[in-house]
Amino acid sequence: MNSASPETTTPSASSTPEAEIEHAVDDVVERASRAFDAVSAREPAVLAAGLDAAAEALEIHADELIELAASETGLTTARLTGELRRTRVQLRLFARVAERGDHLDVRIDPHDPDFALGVPRDDLRRVLMPVGPVAVFAASNFPFAFSVAGGDTAAALAAGCTVVVKAHPGHPLLSRRVCDIVALALVEAGLPEGTLQLVEGQDAGIALLRHPGTRAASFTGSLHAGRFLAHVAASRPDPIPFFGELGSVNPVVVTRAGLQASRDHLAAGFVASVSGSAGQLCTKPGFLLVPSGWGLDNGLSAAAAEVPEHRLLNPGIANGYAARRDAILDTDGVRVVHEGSLRRDESGQGWATPTLVAVSLETLRAHRDTLLDEAFGPLSIVVEYDENADLPAALLELFPGNLTSTLHAGHDETGPDVQAIVRTMARTSGRVLLRGWPTGVAVTPAMQHGGPWPATTTDATSVGTAAIARFLRGVAFQGAPDALLPPSVRDANPWHVPQSRCAAGESIRW
Amino acid sequence: MNSASPETTTPSASSTPEAEIEHAVDDVVERASRAFDAVSAREPAVLAAGLDAAAEALEIHADELIELAASETGLTTARLTGELRRTRVQLRLFARVAERGDHLDVRIDPHDPDFALGVPRDDLRRVLMPVGPVAVFAASNFPFAFSVAGGDTAAALAAGCTVVVKAHPGHPLLSRRVCDIVALALVEAGLPEGTLQLVEGQDAGIALLRHPGTRAASFTGSLHAGRFLAHVAASRPDPIPFFGELGSVNPVVVTRAGLQASRDHLAAGFVASVSGSAGQLCTKPGFLLVPSGWGLDNGLSAAAAEVPEHRLLNPGIANGYAARRDAILDTDGVRVVHEGSLRRDESGQGWATPTLVAVSLETLRAHRDTLLDEAFGPLSIVVEYDENADLPAALLELFPGNLTSTLHAGHDETGPDVQAIVRTMARTSGRVLLRGWPTGVAVTPAMQHGGPWPATTTDATSVGTAAIARFLRGVAFQGAPDALLPPSVRDANPWHVPQSRCAAGESIRW
Repeated sequence: MNSASPETTTPSASSTPEAEIEHAVDDVVERASRAFDAVSAREPAVLAAGLDAAAEALEIHADELIELAASETGLTTARLTGELRRTRVQLRLFARVAERGDHLDVRIDPHDPDFALGVPRDDLRRVLMPVGPVAVFAASNFPFAFSVAGGDTAAALAAGCTVVVKAHPGHPLLSRRVCDIVALALVEAGLPEGTLQLVEGQDAGIALLRHPGTRAASFTGSLHAGRFLAHVAASRPDPIPFFGELGSVNPVVVTRAGLQASRDHLAAGFVASVSGSAGQLCTKPGFLLVPSGWGLDNGLSAAAAEVPEHRLLNPGIANGYAARRDAILDTDGVRVVHEGSLRRDESGQGWATPTLVAVSLETLRAHRDTLLDEAFGPLSIVVEYDENADLPAALLELFPGNLTSTLHAGHDETGPDVQAIVRTMARTSGRVLLRGWPTGVAVTPAMQHGGPWPATTTDATSVGTAAIARFLRGVAFQGAPDALLPPSVRDANPWHVPQSRCAAGESIRW
Repeated sequence: MNSASPETTTPSASSTPEAEIEHAVDDVVERASRAFDAVSAREPAVLAAGLDAAAEALEIHADELIELAASETGLTTARLTGELRRTRVQLRLFARVAERGDHLDVRIDPHDPDFALGVPRDDLRRVLMPVGPVAVFAASNFPFAFSVAGGDTAAALAAGCTVVVKAHPGHPLLSRRVCDIVALALVEAGLPEGTLQLVEGQDAGIALLRHPGTRAASFTGSLHAGRFLAHVAASRPDPIPFFGELGSVNPVVVTRAGLQASRDHLAAGFVASVSGSAGQLCTKPGFLLVPSGWGLDNGLSAAAAEVPEHRLLNPGIANGYAARRDAILDTDGVRVVHEGSLRRDESGQGWATPTLVAVSLETLRAHRDTLLDEAFGPLSIVVEYDENADLPAALLELFPGNLTSTLHAGHDETGPDVQAIVRTMARTSGRVLLRGWPTGVAVTPAMQHGGPWPATTTDATSVGTAAIARFLRGVAFQGAPDALLPPSVRDANPWHVPQSRCAAGESIRW
């Protein structure tokens, strides 16, 4: 998922001399740390009540928030309505996760007088505990779902962490309003002041990431900014985990049989996936690999011509898209399938219709430095491969790290060749689709939204319930009386969480 | 856990010009990658058979290996016998983990026509898959349990990864012999050639870590070397996960009531924990915090005087220990409780008896730069605190990241003060002990051996069954027919692994 790189963000009102920014960030993190002492000890029901209250508050203020978001981002009301619904759904989903407690992975090894290693073993109980105050760097392209009250915030709160969001400069008014609404809802639900806070501006974001009180960070944005922030996190005197989602081109491979099976829907489906939200989605299919002689130019052109002009998120994104689009169109061997348009208005905003080009696999290899980077906007590249192309090798070589890879094979095509493609896609991406299109990411237990570099800095997912794992760390308690144990690992199990027990003596069965 | 820093390692026989080393490492990683294609698709029973065969082979060759290890490390036969037993136990434990399949965390969300987000949702199945070839940097102080066939190797093999170990130069002959024995056992159990390999020398280790085919790395050693290698991993064109266990001083806090409760055993238990394996354990208690006027000098001296001289692992470790010991003894305000000894023999090896010193909490604060670093060897510092000391604040300030923290409280002492200490210990360490001593790490499901920096580079555990998570990554399959799914996520469940299912429509209950 891309966004404006730091250089293109405009200084916000809060940009003040460095010392003042650090002082302000000190205060914010100090509040987050104090709140963490309370939040981290709360029973799951209170965390869940907070998340439910946040969802409800967003629902009450939906009209106002959607209007604000539309004006700041250029996204359509329909899209923003769906996105706000998704944002509420994921807050409530994480409320249920917090209540159930599976994520705590409680393991109890009772005192074992017959331990395999020859000496009696003390009672040992392990639980995943919240890491501490978390810094969440918001994205530009999902002003609700990957921003102030988005998935990272929901996952961190469900884990029992407190959150400081670094607002994305693309929607500052919306960020402040959402923070006010949700922070109040959390307090009314019984969580302390300081559970959710906001900072603005690039310098404040860096100070937040460097602050000793910040214990983990998540980020959704460009490769450039993500790599820089990952370096900041790793260069602290005490490095902290940094979970960045940076960039993905989401290749789609169509076999000859797949082409025959879905010819009627292929062009329309592809164009819809490329052009939705003006292509500003982290899962937009940036490459469509098809057999040479595929003959879909007319279908694609016709579908692309139907797509109305859509505003790009902000002038910085428009600049980036214009540069990438020009570079691709100027590359030798690039054939234009549908040129589309990019118009700039007097305010610097960009307005685009889809641009589709085609290259041979050989051209893609020859011009990989220009062609392979993500183009954040409604542009995609059709890659024509010939019959004897080694597709698994090409995927490994050209597309080694992606959020998604998609295969359109024939309905009965499940032989070794196709198996090898799927196996390679599973090595190079976090989600493998058989038919369908990668945009539209379900928020469910089995979702994986994260893959090998540069899709994410680690393979952790940032969507779905497994995303909570990023904000937890294991702690084992040895030989502790009940009164000194967290409730989750006590024998009485007052929080009613799943507890996995190792029978005494079990470990010596061999 | 400490070890010789890279500067002090002697070049091994394989140290050749850079290009030759890179070429040799290329070959090794190429073999590991080819083997991975096969290993990663193997059913759990084959992985388990390999791990069991490795354990059995180590048992058959135990006498020879223990003799070799004793001569290369100076560790006692009794200690090495126990360590080899532990190493076999953990190989077999990971065999059982591989068989059971809980670690795959299989999640199945069937096709959902009533999905909360308003559009039908495709069938989605998520499983944790092996990351690829793993580089394991072996430790000096556990020539079996944290070396060629140690816990990291066992966890990576159980995950379905292949392993290239960077041998520790402190026991080269043992490393080669163990690799030969275990690699052969793995092949005889049905795993491919190249499943376990060895490289030697610092340059080869760095080339291994930089190699595009290496997909994750684990390390046990010094803060200095670990931070350097973490930087190498993070600076690759495609950064990879680096799991380092770097250093820990394992504070032990004794309350006044705790002192009364365990006065008879305290001195003997502490000295045994400090001096076992000549203090060369990552969980050695480096600090004992006691109320002023504790009056155990005589007990400690007497216990320490009983400890025979023990060889340090190698001349590099002896150099490091001598420098740390001198610096501590030379610090103003340090009171010698038992001076102990450090003798160097003609070969450069060091021989030591325990050194125990005492300081006030104020002296520790004033000389933190000298006193707080890990002293890898049989030295520990008693810290005298007065009645109004804020112990939680002192722990947060002075001991922010440790593998373990231990509290010796009174038998009925479970009030707010003690709760606050335990809560702080859980924030600053991976394992919290109530009474007992941190050395002697059980290999079980509930163990946590990893904590905030610098204990580990991430909070991941390197001991116990949860250690397998380091070598797995999530992959979701969307809309895929059975024939193209990994066996673990098929409805027929041929591997009989636990599968967690989300009922269709479940996610819209709110």
